[in-house]
Amino acid sequence: MAPTFSRIDHVGIAVRDLDAAVDVYRRLTGAEPAHRQRVDSDGIEAVMFEVGESRIELLGSTRDDSKIAGFLVKRGNALHHVAYGVADVQQTLDQFTAMGLQVLDSCPRRGAAGRLVAFMHPSAAAGVLTELCQPDPEAAGEHR
Amino acid sequence: MAPTFSRIDHVGIAVRDLDAAVDVYRRLTGAEPAHRQRVDSDGIEAVMFEVGESRIELLGSTRDDSKIAGFLVKRGNALHHVAYGVADVQQTLDQFTAMGLQVLDSCPRRGAAGRLVAFMHPSAAAGVLTELCQPDPEAAGEHR
Repeated sequence: MAPTFSRIDHVGIAVRDLDAAVDVYRRLTGAEPAHRQRVDSDGIEAVMFEVGESRIELLGSTRDDSKIAGFLVKRGNALHHVAYGVADVQQTLDQFTAMGLQVLDSCPRRGAAGRLVAFMHPSAAAGVLTELCQPDPEAAGEHR
Repeated sequence: MAPTFSRIDHVGIAVRDLDAAVDVYRRLTGAEPAHRQRVDSDGIEAVMFEVGESRIELLGSTRDDSKIAGFLVKRGNALHHVAYGVADVQQTLDQFTAMGLQVLDSCPRRGAAGRLVAFMHPSAAAGVLTELCQPDPEAAGEHR
């Protein structure tokens, strides 16, 4: 059986103060952030730091009724999700659904940098919110 | 400034039922676990799954007074820590200490597979328990 995941694409960390967390990870990683993006439909702003073949995604909330805002009220700054690279999100979703695993997105949607992504329910991954990410070959300069 | 971290070495996930979680990640990753180890001094048992250049570390508790047991009572199954690969743990600890960051281990200690590791306080990494891991060149078959 071939491995399903090519790599840890990123680890998502929810933070109350995005700019403060960016400063912390700039010092820790010794690198500048690679990417910053607001996703107004989700009420989030995300900043990515590259680490090897993976990234650290710092996630701030841009409005009080976002899911991240709810998470931050409950947990404070904390690890939020793990995302894995897959060759084909739809095919992986179909495979996991056939295995009886619970998905949150039955079809892929566009995530940061135009990539196809989908979330699995935490119950499918021993309690961890899990994202699948597919590289978009048409996105210029985007190899992930 | 050169990047401090060469890769995400592993992501640690605390689980109440280690064998059940191993079955879940065997199905999710399409791979067999690469490594299993009890660390009686810490009251943990850890199972590693390789994902690209990184690993997923499933962490179970082997006694009621372990730190992982306390975490599981509070949080249940959940993301527990992120570990980064560094060239030299002591040097990185010294650098972080000089930057005023709080460390939990002032000297490296032996972790799984004989590697040198040290933990940073969550306050040093925007609320995330953070581990530094150094490959051990003397450990046969251990390239990480």
